[in-house]
Amino acid sequence: MDIQTLRQKNPDHWMRATAIRTLTLDAVAAANSGHSGMPMGMADVATVLFEKHLKFDPKAPRWPDRDRFILSAGHGSMLIYALLYLTGYEDMTLDQIRNFRQWGAITAGHPEYGHVAGVETTTGPLGQGISNAVGFAMAEESLRARWGAKVQDHYTWVIAGDGCLMEGVSQEAIGLAGKQQLSRLIVLWDNNGITIDGKVSIADITDQKARFAASGWDVFECDGHDPADIDRALTAAKASPRPAMVACKTHIALGHAAQDTSKGHGALTDKAQLQAAKEAYGWTGGPFEVPAEIKAWWESLGARGAKARAEWEARMAALSPAKQAEFRRIFALEAPAKLASAIRAVKKQAVADLPKLATRAASEKVLAAVNPVMTETIGGSADLTGSNNTKTADLGVFTPEDRKGRYVYFGIREHGMAAAMNGMALHGGIRPYGGTFMCFTDYARPSMRLSALMGVPVVYVMTHDSIGLGEDGPTHQPVEHLAISRATPNTLVIRPADLVEVAEAWEIALTEKTRPTVLALSRQNLPAVRKTHTNQNMVARGAYVLAEATGKRQVILMATGSEVEIALKAREALEAEGIGTRVVSMPSMELFAAQDEAYRRKVLPPGPVRVAIEAGVRQGWDRWLLGERGREAKADFVGMSTFGASAPMERLYAEFGITAEATVAKAKALL
Amino acid sequence: MDIQTLRQKNPDHWMRATAIRTLTLDAVAAANSGHSGMPMGMADVATVLFEKHLKFDPKAPRWPDRDRFILSAGHGSMLIYALLYLTGYEDMTLDQIRNFRQWGAITAGHPEYGHVAGVETTTGPLGQGISNAVGFAMAEESLRARWGAKVQDHYTWVIAGDGCLMEGVSQEAIGLAGKQQLSRLIVLWDNNGITIDGKVSIADITDQKARFAASGWDVFECDGHDPADIDRALTAAKASPRPAMVACKTHIALGHAAQDTSKGHGALTDKAQLQAAKEAYGWTGGPFEVPAEIKAWWESLGARGAKARAEWEARMAALSPAKQAEFRRIFALEAPAKLASAIRAVKKQAVADLPKLATRAASEKVLAAVNPVMTETIGGSADLTGSNNTKTADLGVFTPEDRKGRYVYFGIREHGMAAAMNGMALHGGIRPYGGTFMCFTDYARPSMRLSALMGVPVVYVMTHDSIGLGEDGPTHQPVEHLAISRATPNTLVIRPADLVEVAEAWEIALTEKTRPTVLALSRQNLPAVRKTHTNQNMVARGAYVLAEATGKRQVILMATGSEVEIALKAREALEAEGIGTRVVSMPSMELFAAQDEAYRRKVLPPGPVRVAIEAGVRQGWDRWLLGERGREAKADFVGMSTFGASAPMERLYAEFGITAEATVAKAKALL
Repeated sequence: MDIQTLRQKNPDHWMRATAIRTLTLDAVAAANSGHSGMPMGMADVATVLFEKHLKFDPKAPRWPDRDRFILSAGHGSMLIYALLYLTGYEDMTLDQIRNFRQWGAITAGHPEYGHVAGVETTTGPLGQGISNAVGFAMAEESLRARWGAKVQDHYTWVIAGDGCLMEGVSQEAIGLAGKQQLSRLIVLWDNNGITIDGKVSIADITDQKARFAASGWDVFECDGHDPADIDRALTAAKASPRPAMVACKTHIALGHAAQDTSKGHGALTDKAQLQAAKEAYGWTGGPFEVPAEIKAWWESLGARGAKARAEWEARMAALSPAKQAEFRRIFALEAPAKLASAIRAVKKQAVADLPKLATRAASEKVLAAVNPVMTETIGGSADLTGSNNTKTADLGVFTPEDRKGRYVYFGIREHGMAAAMNGMALHGGIRPYGGTFMCFTDYARPSMRLSALMGVPVVYVMTHDSIGLGEDGPTHQPVEHLAISRATPNTLVIRPADLVEVAEAWEIALTEKTRPTVLALSRQNLPAVRKTHTNQNMVARGAYVLAEATGKRQVILMATGSEVEIALKAREALEAEGIGTRVVSMPSMELFAAQDEAYRRKVLPPGPVRVAIEAGVRQGWDRWLLGERGREAKADFVGMSTFGASAPMERLYAEFGITAEATVAKAKALL
Repeated sequence: MDIQTLRQKNPDHWMRATAIRTLTLDAVAAANSGHSGMPMGMADVATVLFEKHLKFDPKAPRWPDRDRFILSAGHGSMLIYALLYLTGYEDMTLDQIRNFRQWGAITAGHPEYGHVAGVETTTGPLGQGISNAVGFAMAEESLRARWGAKVQDHYTWVIAGDGCLMEGVSQEAIGLAGKQQLSRLIVLWDNNGITIDGKVSIADITDQKARFAASGWDVFECDGHDPADIDRALTAAKASPRPAMVACKTHIALGHAAQDTSKGHGALTDKAQLQAAKEAYGWTGGPFEVPAEIKAWWESLGARGAKARAEWEARMAALSPAKQAEFRRIFALEAPAKLASAIRAVKKQAVADLPKLATRAASEKVLAAVNPVMTETIGGSADLTGSNNTKTADLGVFTPEDRKGRYVYFGIREHGMAAAMNGMALHGGIRPYGGTFMCFTDYARPSMRLSALMGVPVVYVMTHDSIGLGEDGPTHQPVEHLAISRATPNTLVIRPADLVEVAEAWEIALTEKTRPTVLALSRQNLPAVRKTHTNQNMVARGAYVLAEATGKRQVILMATGSEVEIALKAREALEAEGIGTRVVSMPSMELFAAQDEAYRRKVLPPGPVRVAIEAGVRQGWDRWLLGERGREAKADFVGMSTFGASAPMERLYAEFGITAEATVAKAKALL
């Protein structure tokens, strides 16, 4: 690439885009780590995007009708930090840039949602941003259909690299977006031909344009260093009636000695090379210096968005006060007033009926009561709708023909579903929930971790939550998956035992604002265990005394979900032998851990022997069995230590020893 | 579809294929669960494959040069069970078919490797089989290049459904196979247009033929119910110089009332409908009855394979005895005699040099010693070669031009890499290892679980195993991932502390036969902690006393990997205050748990207070801190309870309180 030709052809554009390059070089050099090459290669595309297309207002980064800009290639974080600094986002000071990747700075190694205004989603794990973006675009379509284009009318832009496109989740995203004809979704592919290990071609020969086109996208191309050509392609992409991919031919680490090499992907810190690059650029300022007129030009770009925002606010003000309040409510993640009464009604009816039903079916009952009063929910399933019980009659199906539908057929795409749900939640105005088998949390895991890391209240409806699913066998039977979700910080795991607990669990999940919830639900029918009504949400305590010992309390049995029934049967047998036995239902360890110590000691007083029963691995239970600092109780566990097997569920519970008899025997052995 | 026309056009073929259909209908009806429609739809394709193309010998199911047949759409397990029964695999009796999905039967809900001769890999979790198949085909290419076509010369056939193709991992597999030009890989796509939730088109409009072609595959089509057309397409696919996909247009649940509907995907158990289908087929036998002449025809198919096997055995016998023994050795997963001495030499040198180095760099040193003496290893990385330290000088790169290369650039495809490694290990003759960042075990997780479930000794080289990776931040910092792998049954997790422990860890991983190993390795440099040589493999004990208390033993500190250094520093400080402190290095909880109780009590005697130090979550540690039945010790933990942050690692350890000072304080607080 001949830098001098680029400079001469578009001198103004060149210097503006090069401000991104020099800030990147300086910040990476100061941190002595990071990724220089991608921001240097995509600076021209980003400049044209911000100059001519992106609807944004640095003074109102959370404005609901802004365009969303997603840096899926998150390792190039200096691209977005530089853009936010240059355009005048208040938080993104030059000091933050100087402190790139340092403790306490908002300029983390990879862009983190919640740390930085203007960062719409946390990226870095490749393929996530482009997949989140599908959710952003679906949220926009849904809100536009239901609120009107006066309220929601924006694009979602993505910069993705070869890494994003090689990750499998991108195919799920591409397929979903293609089917849904998400015409407001535009992916700018940084086609630089380089990965960490070398040229892309050492690992992939995929014709990406043909691949996107095969899934119903429109495909465009541009010279990623020619501003006019970039503008032409972006303009065409916006006009396309389908999701659009723009292949931007770029040079990684443009103008640096490492240009077009895998070395250019990483941290370019050599001082002489850095200085040589700046000289080639025609850049004379010192480290972190941006000439005033260039900074002023960048700051002027916000004016277009500021005008659009003022117009949007005027349109919002013209809505009825009730509509305005409702719009604010859904974006603030406030539950509607009617949620609590809907939940209460389900609980009262449950106590009247005492139905024997699977908790996945109980979940459908709760959703049938909740969805009509909580229109910000969007439900879906990864092709297990009838098994996950996620679709209620009122929802309608979200399709290109009916954007008001609130149910999504995600296809056999657990990972893409989770990533899209993150995107919907991050967009705002939507509370997504989606189902698959608990065992396939494995497939969704990278996005589930990001739900937790970002603190977005997505609800994962994970049914068939143990060997209780029976004949499908060990490939479909979760054993370690409760432990996996519990091990993950900022993740709420709830495994309810009956309809009442399911109702309480949904109330918690739908009022959460800062973390995802994993609902673990049974395939098999379960008896009602909560037989008297209370307005109090007992699941919110995490654990509570479900049945008290008569006489001297010698044993405490703890259980979750489908095993609460077993605990109650074991209690009967122990009590019949004169052994006073308490049963504690423990639907959520995280919620119980958050209670004050007095409550925790009331539920689990030291002394009596403890046995926990859960059809999963023991890992995670010892804190409650043994006490956090030890020596609280003698204890044992009834559960799984191997993978399951294929057989009817009754046989499996018997063969793996998850029975009342085994529980009684273990308790007595400890006494 | 007009069944009568099909019957009349090819009457013999029709009845042979229909034996698969009726066995499926009967087995699913008896089990009252399962998936009828797929075997019914793909019966014709499978019949032609087994009749005219597949190289197999039911009398020698493990014959190393057989074609591999992989049912990626594993829910259609009755297809493979019926084929194995019909062609005369000894284990697959009619009683097994009658006991489909019952306890103790080998006919599990989804095909399970190791249970059934003729099932090459466990499938059911969608997308896995097609992705394993890439590894099978790579193994064949590698062995053919290195041993000659006389020894290895076979195809890998896959039946995949829409579910497999919608899962993202399939894109990783397709991309990898396309780049590698795996011409012996043939995917038969069951193009029936139906998923559980309805028509495929409700979730996907992808042109699959164009998608495969975009990644360098050759694409063919056939009428999946016309035997001549199927044969034509399969013949063409075999001749293709690239991996081939054959789109087989089929009707799910052919001939049943549920044909071409999503109901047809599941269990078809209605007796009247079942009988009506059999009548339409012209099938007069009772349940599970196959006319003798049809059974005899199916059994005759094995003759082609038996002949090929005899010829292969003659060719093998012509090899030198040493070569024959070596071939048997690598397929038997026996380590070469030189492995132990290579490991011993590394250990001795390490104790002489006491190098301060990252355990990932230590791993490279060990591999450099091992790879030349263990030519069955194939290494690789998901585009992090320089970071994972997985490539040694002698390996060469596996490419279409050099099939003798033993290093694979897997691309940014952690999941596809893991699935391909499973396939290589299952094929036999190869011991695969592959690297990525520990945090991205999330991406590989579904295949890692299957490594464990199948019991294949794949080695996962997971570097950057804690907040010690520093500036890349929380998206790249594992916190819960040690717990996740430890929670998974039949998974060996080893987190070594220095070069000696790394060498011992590799020795264990490379002699394992029945489970995968996860090696957790540091980015950062670590001091040598094992300073005297012993021939004994101490890591094989799981945990051992690294430094003993002087005087009365009041404290036991346990640590793994990078935190052993911290434990030793804390011990120094405690000892300086007169508090006798033992340090236990615990590289592997699974190996320690497998020791006898006497050894475990010797290492962790009840009494002294215990503090464990690991830069991850506490989950999984309580068993060792508190004792399995409790009351063994007062205990505490130094580690993580939240996600990490982006900053230099020294700062992170200090901020998150994973320090010798914090360890000392916690120990003293318990005394």
